[in-house]
Amino acid sequence: MEFSAAQIAQIIGGSVEGNAATTVSSFGKIEEAVAGQLAFLANPKYEEYLYNTKASVIIINDTQVLKEPIQATLIKVADAYSAFAALLEQYQKMQSQQMVGIQEPVYIDPTAKKGTDIFIGAFAYIGQNAQIGNNTKIYPNAFIGNNVSIGNNTIIHPGVKIYHDCVIGNNVVIHAGTVIGGDGFGFAPQADGSFKKVPQTGNVIIEDNVEIGSNATIDRATIGSTIIKSGAKLDNLLQIAHNVEVGNNSVIAAQTGVSGSTKIGNNVMIGGQVGIVGHIQIADGTKINAQSGVSKSIKTPNSAVTGSPAFDYTAALRSQALSRNLPEMEKRIKALENEIKLLMQKLI
Amino acid sequence: MEFSAAQIAQIIGGSVEGNAATTVSSFGKIEEAVAGQLAFLANPKYEEYLYNTKASVIIINDTQVLKEPIQATLIKVADAYSAFAALLEQYQKMQSQQMVGIQEPVYIDPTAKKGTDIFIGAFAYIGQNAQIGNNTKIYPNAFIGNNVSIGNNTIIHPGVKIYHDCVIGNNVVIHAGTVIGGDGFGFAPQADGSFKKVPQTGNVIIEDNVEIGSNATIDRATIGSTIIKSGAKLDNLLQIAHNVEVGNNSVIAAQTGVSGSTKIGNNVMIGGQVGIVGHIQIADGTKINAQSGVSKSIKTPNSAVTGSPAFDYTAALRSQALSRNLPEMEKRIKALENEIKLLMQKLI
Amino acid sequence: MEFSAAQIAQIIGGSVEGNAATTVSSFGKIEEAVAGQLAFLANPKYEEYLYNTKASVIIINDTQVLKEPIQATLIKVADAYSAFAALLEQYQKMQSQQMVGIQEPVYIDPTAKKGTDIFIGAFAYIGQNAQIGNNTKIYPNAFIGNNVSIGNNTIIHPGVKIYHDCVIGNNVVIHAGTVIGGDGFGFAPQADGSFKKVPQTGNVIIEDNVEIGSNATIDRATIGSTIIKSGAKLDNLLQIAHNVEVGNNSVIAAQTGVSGSTKIGNNVMIGGQVGIVGHIQIADGTKINAQSGVSKSIKTPNSAVTGSPAFDYTAALRSQALSRNLPEMEKRIKALENEIKLLMQKLI
Repeated sequence: MEFSAAQIAQIIGGSVEGNAATTVSSFGKIEEAVAGQLAFLANPKYEEYLYNTKASVIIINDTQVLKEPIQATLIKVADAYSAFAALLEQYQKMQSQQMVGIQEPVYIDPTAKKGTDIFIGAFAYIGQNAQIGNNTKIYPNAFIGNNVSIGNNTIIHPGVKIYHDCVIGNNVVIHAGTVIGGDGFGFAPQADGSFKKVPQTGNVIIEDNVEIGSNATIDRATIGSTIIKSGAKLDNLLQIAHNVEVGNNSVIAAQTGVSGSTKIGNNVMIGGQVGIVGHIQIADGTKINAQSGVSKSIKTPNSAVTGSPAFDYTAALRSQALSRNLPEMEKRIKALENEIKLLMQKLI
Repeated sequence: MEFSAAQIAQIIGGSVEGNAATTVSSFGKIEEAVAGQLAFLANPKYEEYLYNTKASVIIINDTQVLKEPIQATLIKVADAYSAFAALLEQYQKMQSQQMVGIQEPVYIDPTAKKGTDIFIGAFAYIGQNAQIGNNTKIYPNAFIGNNVSIGNNTIIHPGVKIYHDCVIGNNVVIHAGTVIGGDGFGFAPQADGSFKKVPQTGNVIIEDNVEIGSNATIDRATIGSTIIKSGAKLDNLLQIAHNVEVGNNSVIAAQTGVSGSTKIGNNVMIGGQVGIVGHIQIADGTKINAQSGVSKSIKTPNSAVTGSPAFDYTAALRSQALSRNLPEMEKRIKALENEIKLLMQKLI
Repeated sequence: MEFSAAQIAQIIGGSVEGNAATTVSSFGKIEEAVAGQLAFLANPKYEEYLYNTKASVIIINDTQVLKEPIQATLIKVADAYSAFAALLEQYQKMQSQQMVGIQEPVYIDPTAKKGTDIFIGAFAYIGQNAQIGNNTKIYPNAFIGNNVSIGNNTIIHPGVKIYHDCVIGNNVVIHAGTVIGGDGFGFAPQADGSFKKVPQTGNVIIEDNVEIGSNATIDRATIGSTIIKSGAKLDNLLQIAHNVEVGNNSVIAAQTGVSGSTKIGNNVMIGGQVGIVGHIQIADGTKINAQSGVSKSIKTPNSAVTGSPAFDYTAALRSQALSRNLPEMEKRIKALENEIKLLMQKLI
């Protein structure tokens, strides 16, 4: 999509200085923008870039005093940062609103129910008795299993796979390649050393306003539901095992794994590549540092932990620092041993 | 699928108490079940839930004495736990048996060979000379490359990608999004700092009764085969590199990575997020704790290791505990140093 | 594909000894090859296998003296290793050259531009204004979003998803299931504990000669571009966050994660399961050991680091070794304490 400086000025209520017909088609940071991009200047620290940026159009505060002539077209507004942020948001909305209707070919079971103003991309599969809410978009090559229910204003990106009987809420975003509702990893050891599959008959419930990154896996419950509660944000390549619960507005960074039946509270923040064992509780407001391994329940709300096995953040940092100094510590012990030996010889 | 209490009682040979027409459509745990679910009570510890559960139908032992009236319909059997487990298993079978035939559109190369009673979902791709065994199910959007051979009673879930020349056995389950047979990560460094691809001409062999989770990656061998042996169970987001072998009935949890040419023995159990370097052997029956980093061969069968780098489980736990106490240990050294200094002053 | 010994001898300029009509259809290592495979012998250490290998055809140096009669057909050349490597490469090329044309059904937006000699597999999706270069192959079930540009001689494997506006160079290989251009993980915390999505309006640029493994995720920039520079090689299940840059000819092994806005220099080598925090720089030529956690910029080129948090490789190995000896060290401190107590009693 291409916009002229005049069009942008109209959207954000700004005034143009320079060639109002100059067009831009994407956004750039003022320090690295190229021709055809729109940038902004709000932080005085970046003012130097204003005079040599390659951006074609720049949004600036109307209080900004110019020290040199500027090649780019300027749009002056009261608050450049807010105006730019508002534009970004509107752009994102427009991007997604472009897609409407049902492309061909798709596979939609006759028993599936479709809301209004939906988009279903080519090669998407909608199973028996599936329900797609209003304004919801199912991108190409997505798989929506039998009896899956998806709410309103939800975006299912390309190649997402949602197994049968799962429930997806309103305003949910699931990025490409993510798998919702695969079988939990449950196998009963047999006398001959082989394993017998434990049937995984539950489902996954994704509540409203959840966003899930790309190529993540959220397994269905053995019995009952694996639940991602309202407002939670999960990053790429995450592993959520069967019967796990993730609380409201909790945030989990990429490549973290949560083992079976663990309950994560509300407003928890978990870094990347964290591992959490099964059948434990993580209290509300807990902060878990990247690459930690959590092996026990965290019962005190708003704790911070790090390390593998994880413990109190501040204490762990002190231990980690000393751990680096082990060669030094070993030398001190050696010196003490020598001195003691000397003393012993003198005395005994 | 909906079943009445009467139908269920007939399947498991139980007797109904209450409204035999009550229907259920899924399973629940007695402590969290909702209306429309079937639960069971076997463990006396959970008896309290019997009187306030929202489950519509409950399977109980016929020896169970009721202390209060119960709203739900009851089905009495000799062994409630076994009856419930049998139902779960039968339900899982019915779920998968529902899918038969070939949906439209699919892409099946005319040279491909199809067994009897198969299911091929819409948008599945079956390449040249591929073979699909009897009773095997290929779910929508799956990709079966040229010359791939798949055995009988195998389930390939949606969006699985199997590159050319790979061999998949009988009774195998591969969950959604998993990639079998991508190129091994082999590049030869060149004098100018660039890398030249080493051709990856081998394949992947998945033997019988293997189950593989969602979004895992198992690379083809450079020459020869990457092999997952009979009965092995691999979890989500696993990385198995070129020329690796995983032994019979070995179990590997989510997000673990095994580097090139490593041979894992039989009945090995590996936790989540473990890393194993290339070109080593892991003895039969080894247990590797979650998040371990294994950098050397493990030669003694039935060893248990943990840590990164991994070593003996019990010793490692002791070291980890002391590692937390490093600040304390450092204080003790400091105290010793002071005392020695005092003694030295007195003596020398 | 099947070749006779006579055909292979002609390709590599060798002379046949034995049945020239013997055919092979794949490659094997001499020590594990089966009937129907082609092997080679170059390293004298492996000569013993020459006399009992099951390979049907073997390439050997013409200087090789035979101590026993051999069942397999032999092809004699000046340099057996080079001849075999050349064959592997030619085989890989032929494999990929087989696929040409456009299968049915596909979805190609009328505004998309297609180069010459391309392959587009069934169920592939090519969005508005997308550009596909010459000799480029888009495998089945791949998704190419709106305005995506792909160069010449590039291979997009099955089920790859490339979001709108991303740019892919020449001679690039992207393996199955990888997602390019998903939204960066950016959410602004709100006063009520919820999170508001930060629009991700940038893109991903993959430069020439890059290879990316299976089921990896490379997020689009918030503003600007996430960039993978020329010649970089990225393994399976990798996580590259928004606005990251990976330098020329850098190599990153499987399951590693790089957080937002971090810049990785040229010729960097990163092991598997490494985590790198956001907003740091990694100097050219840095080597990062598997499972490391890098929390600070590495400013000295050609450094080697390990551990979590990562520090100097040699020092870290020494600390790790001592860390295993902590129980021993604790005993030495205890002994010192006892001896001091003894001395104190004698003296004071």
